[in-house]
Amino acid sequence: MYRTHSCGELRASHINSEVTLAGWVQKSRDKGFMIWVDLRDRYGITQLIFDEERTSLDLLESARKLGREFVIQVTGTVIERQSKNPNIPTGDVEVLVKKLTVLNEAKLPPFTIEDETDGGEDLRMKYRYLDIRRNPVKEKLLFRHKVAMEVRKYLSDQGFAEVETPYLIKSTPEGARDFVVPSRMNEGQFYALPQSPQTFKQLLMVGGMDKYFQIVKCFRDEDLRADRQPEFTQIDCEMAFVDQEDILNTFEGLTRHLLKELKGIEIGEFPRMQYDDAMRLYGNDKPDIRFGMQFGELNEVTKHRDFNVFNNAELVVGIAVPGAASFTRKEIDQLIDWVKRPQVGALGMVYVKCNEDGSFKSSVDKFYDQEDLAKWAEKTGAKVGDLICILSGQTDKTRTQLSALRMEMAERLGLRKSDEFAPLWVVDFPLLEWDEETERYHAMHHPFTSPKPEQISLLETEPGKVKANAYDLVLNGNEIGGGSIRIHDKKVQAMMFDYLGFTPQEAKEQFGFLMDAFEYGAPPHGGIAFGFDRLVAILGGQETIRDYIAFPKNNSGRDVMIDAPSKLDDEQLKELNIGLDISK
Amino acid sequence: MYRTHSCGELRASHINSEVTLAGWVQKSRDKGFMIWVDLRDRYGITQLIFDEERTSLDLLESARKLGREFVIQVTGTVIERQSKNPNIPTGDVEVLVKKLTVLNEAKLPPFTIEDETDGGEDLRMKYRYLDIRRNPVKEKLLFRHKVAMEVRKYLSDQGFAEVETPYLIKSTPEGARDFVVPSRMNEGQFYALPQSPQTFKQLLMVGGMDKYFQIVKCFRDEDLRADRQPEFTQIDCEMAFVDQEDILNTFEGLTRHLLKELKGIEIGEFPRMQYDDAMRLYGNDKPDIRFGMQFGELNEVTKHRDFNVFNNAELVVGIAVPGAASFTRKEIDQLIDWVKRPQVGALGMVYVKCNEDGSFKSSVDKFYDQEDLAKWAEKTGAKVGDLICILSGQTDKTRTQLSALRMEMAERLGLRKSDEFAPLWVVDFPLLEWDEETERYHAMHHPFTSPKPEQISLLETEPGKVKANAYDLVLNGNEIGGGSIRIHDKKVQAMMFDYLGFTPQEAKEQFGFLMDAFEYGAPPHGGIAFGFDRLVAILGGQETIRDYIAFPKNNSGRDVMIDAPSKLDDEQLKELNIGLDISK
Repeated sequence: MYRTHSCGELRASHINSEVTLAGWVQKSRDKGFMIWVDLRDRYGITQLIFDEERTSLDLLESARKLGREFVIQVTGTVIERQSKNPNIPTGDVEVLVKKLTVLNEAKLPPFTIEDETDGGEDLRMKYRYLDIRRNPVKEKLLFRHKVAMEVRKYLSDQGFAEVETPYLIKSTPEGARDFVVPSRMNEGQFYALPQSPQTFKQLLMVGGMDKYFQIVKCFRDEDLRADRQPEFTQIDCEMAFVDQEDILNTFEGLTRHLLKELKGIEIGEFPRMQYDDAMRLYGNDKPDIRFGMQFGELNEVTKHRDFNVFNNAELVVGIAVPGAASFTRKEIDQLIDWVKRPQVGALGMVYVKCNEDGSFKSSVDKFYDQEDLAKWAEKTGAKVGDLICILSGQTDKTRTQLSALRMEMAERLGLRKSDEFAPLWVVDFPLLEWDEETERYHAMHHPFTSPKPEQISLLETEPGKVKANAYDLVLNGNEIGGGSIRIHDKKVQAMMFDYLGFTPQEAKEQFGFLMDAFEYGAPPHGGIAFGFDRLVAILGGQETIRDYIAFPKNNSGRDVMIDAPSKLDDEQLKELNIGLDISK
Repeated sequence: MYRTHSCGELRASHINSEVTLAGWVQKSRDKGFMIWVDLRDRYGITQLIFDEERTSLDLLESARKLGREFVIQVTGTVIERQSKNPNIPTGDVEVLVKKLTVLNEAKLPPFTIEDETDGGEDLRMKYRYLDIRRNPVKEKLLFRHKVAMEVRKYLSDQGFAEVETPYLIKSTPEGARDFVVPSRMNEGQFYALPQSPQTFKQLLMVGGMDKYFQIVKCFRDEDLRADRQPEFTQIDCEMAFVDQEDILNTFEGLTRHLLKELKGIEIGEFPRMQYDDAMRLYGNDKPDIRFGMQFGELNEVTKHRDFNVFNNAELVVGIAVPGAASFTRKEIDQLIDWVKRPQVGALGMVYVKCNEDGSFKSSVDKFYDQEDLAKWAEKTGAKVGDLICILSGQTDKTRTQLSALRMEMAERLGLRKSDEFAPLWVVDFPLLEWDEETERYHAMHHPFTSPKPEQISLLETEPGKVKANAYDLVLNGNEIGGGSIRIHDKKVQAMMFDYLGFTPQEAKEQFGFLMDAFEYGAPPHGGIAFGFDRLVAILGGQETIRDYIAFPKNNSGRDVMIDAPSKLDDEQLKELNIGLDISK
């Protein structure tokens, strides 16, 4: 053992003890006759002291040569500090060093290993092993461990068994693109890495495992948007003999447990919102309900005038931005520019200021009178001092635009507080969604999701209106989990594949084993999967996941630290019976 | 919720309660006027009863139609059984059914879902979801979950943090063959799946994580011997600022914890054995020490006679098989045939019977007298009634052959008791091993293993004699864990790569990031990895791992249930910029 104590351990009660510590030189201050060194390890920082009076000259000289991030071992006596540091737990004491061993030298790191670093994202990723030494990154990884432990503890206590499902599985064209793995032993054939253990967890239910979970890596070969990773971690769960209510209660329990254990926050019953209401009131299937600004639909109260922009719009809809009536003309113009940016895509914005004297001032005063505007204020819940922002156009697009504006205003007004947690169940998702490109319906959740039994007949006539027993758990405007009650009947499953455009042949080839399994006594079952990276980040009070992943990839799917992916030897390719496609 | 209780829950105290159960029909007995159905779920079996007197005719008729493995839901009253079944926890009661719902029908399963099944291995694997319904398989998977939970609990309590390392990494030709993954976004480049998180855990140590563990899938594209899987699970661990003693103590603690919590067995300090002694005394680096039969080397006490087989042999070595002097001539001949099988490869076997009267009878009585044989008995520790089996030849081969014989005899004599646990540390492994094929030294453990510091100079003169700070944890003749103190010095690491035949260029290309990391303050560190599948199997009292894996692959690396690997669409290949190699 290289140490008797960690660098976060020593207190006043240790004074006069002889201790041995090991760690990294955080920094040193050399006053000539006296040298202080901050020694750091995972657990904290302890101040070391060398001085002319009590330290041999040799030792003082050695201490003087210590550079940042040198790895050292010291033995010495714990003494009381003359000027205590109340900011760190070891701040009452320091170690008067008697013996110093340099365990490893260090080159000057390419960025400072401090809470606030001068290293940019790229540099930090290339030297991730140095970045991890920094408190903010290290604490996030330790927090992730803690969340995982609590998840496992809770679910295990509830009777769930963690079962490992395979990573080398079969490619299925449905859904996102698979990463594939050539099989050397089965020439010309490939495994795929799982996008999720979906079919395996369903087979475990057929197998009578009853309550399954797994914290598991999943893989999607997608073009990476910011803050997406080609490999990501899921808390994957499934239960048999349950209906939707049981699943919501179980995983509301899990989420409540995490909030309590990790954040000390007790939250009562989670509100539930229908998908249709979420879209109508927030323009979004994952509304952030930490703040208001619910949508007010204004078609009824706008269409009696000659303002054709509104009259021709499928939807006229507004939000009341609290306190924003004080915006200057310039600020409002900037806001209009903001909604017209291609990322948002609105054609314009109508606004109404709710003045202190109870009057209204709008950008469409030519068309609407005070009485009209009062109705708009009522519909959007606007109060004195608020600014009503109104967008109009095709329903879906307008809702998306206004949702973006709502989030932007909340951000600007500081309403998205990272220490406030507002969970929400969004339920009754549509079963299918229309895909413009392929001109057919796709499964909104996945092809194993059960339509609401009473709506199965609607599939023939109005497939877009059929709702599923599908639900998302939303936390602070982020979807942290989603799931559904599954189909457990072979005939319904075959019908679903048919609606989704699979030929019986294709369905059999890709999911034959599941269809077969359904013939041997499949129980009713359902489940949920949480995006673990995102869940941890949100619990940690952040919106970006990257620092909660020890070794993340960049937006090109590269690990810049190890420089992967990389080329293979020809020999390796040959053994795998594949070649690089040079046809183009 | 489909049930008020599980099928393993009802006791005499529930008599007269109305309950709802759901599960699978295990079997039914129809006596005409009375039908009993065994209803099964993960938690147990409950007997249901339908009878003419108390059950409506319709219901009786429905019950009559239930087939094996039908999924049903029943509501009824808990009543006392007339003939109790003491073999199951619910054996005091049965449920008089009032309502029966068939949730799903089932085809007759291809094998019986009983503890002893009529299904062969292949059939069971194809319908693994049915196999998992069987108690022996289900219990093994639940046991695995329990072991994983205990591992995590113990290590987490010891301050270890579980950190997820990436699955899409870089291919390195060192070691076994990698599975690779073509990168669509980085044309012509490939990821590799990790054979172990070795370099990442070392980087985490450089990053100051101090104590790391992970229960993690690893991948090796090897030709599969029986009971090997292309994907397998490791408990991967690493610690900083430790020496070998710290690691042995920590993981001895873990193993002791598992034996206590899972098997109720308390074991004291684990014995330690040098690698050289293990080879000398057991012919094996993972000796099963649940029984004796240590090797006795006989060169000294055989070479003074004219028996050239022994005189010309590098090693003459024997074991005393307890009680086997009673073997008939025929049995001994069969044993000689057994060691001569190509799988063992001995040229013959000399034997000595230690008779009840104290005399000896050997197959080489022509050459050796009673006094000689008495010496052999002494060297092998043979007692009256034992059979001394002696092999001779080249040292390594002979040891391997005798080790095989020793294990076979122990098996036959019932000395390998599955409820007895004999852990053992084997330490001081050689750093390098000579590879006949490539005519160079390979790292015995891996290229990051530290030579014993005092022996580094030997590398120049006698590299084969250099020992490493490397250790294996052996349990009942199986290596369940192995690890080493790592090199943390860039110069030593470069030297090791040099000895292993890497050019500086190759070393830089493959492990440059690790060498770089070593320049920025790497702490002394070391670790261990446990083969989790094997550990669980041995704790479960079994030697084969397959039933401890939910969805294992067969010896061709195929998942016969989902039929993977499989062919890809041309389009998918094209997108990945690869083609099938049709050059041969």
